[in-house]
Amino acid sequence: MSDPAPQVPPQLAAYRATIDNLDAALIHLLAERFRCTRQVGRLKADLHLPPSDPAREEQQVARLRALAEEAGLDPVFAEKFFTFIVAEVIRHHEAIRDELSE
Amino acid sequence: MSDPAPQVPPQLAAYRATIDNLDAALIHLLAERFRCTRQVGRLKADLHLPPSDPAREEQQVARLRALAEEAGLDPVFAEKFFTFIVAEVIRHHEAIRDELSE
Repeated sequence: MSDPAPQVPPQLAAYRATIDNLDAALIHLLAERFRCTRQVGRLKADLHLPPSDPAREEQQVARLRALAEEAGLDPVFAEKFFTFIVAEVIRHHEAIRDELSE
Repeated sequence: MSDPAPQVPPQLAAYRATIDNLDAALIHLLAERFRCTRQVGRLKADLHLPPSDPAREEQQVARLRALAEEAGLDPVFAEKFFTFIVAEVIRHHEAIRDELSE
């Protein structure tokens, strides 16, 4: 009986093992980040602060672009990544605010 | 003279310090992930393998959703995150293939 799954070249399998470990680490860091921003959302709602803070976001983008550049990551991609994360965070903050004001 | 910057409540400043550390870690892991997928892109081009692999991606999505669930991260968000990363990786793989075939 032949194996129906195509053979993965050993070097590709090795890269994939690294990618899988990095992805698991990324998921766990993202989980912690959202755990933290949920607390920020509750604190902002308690203190009647707005869900988003453009000045803080501008500083974060500048810092992450600089870190990306040093680490060899495309700073344009780093900024897109940050925008992607912040859109989700603001969605959470608004939901918390709406829940608390109901 | 008054300080023109608004005061950040201490608890919010503490959360922000944690978020900044997590973001730096995320940027560095993403840099490593793209360093690895660039090598994958070159290997795939050398071996004439297609830039994307739907079966592998399906396994990755299932695994990352399960990891997210365990870690307390929204699995829908984890899948969106993965789709966001893979779109960039495939863009890189196609660029490498086009460069090598020129």
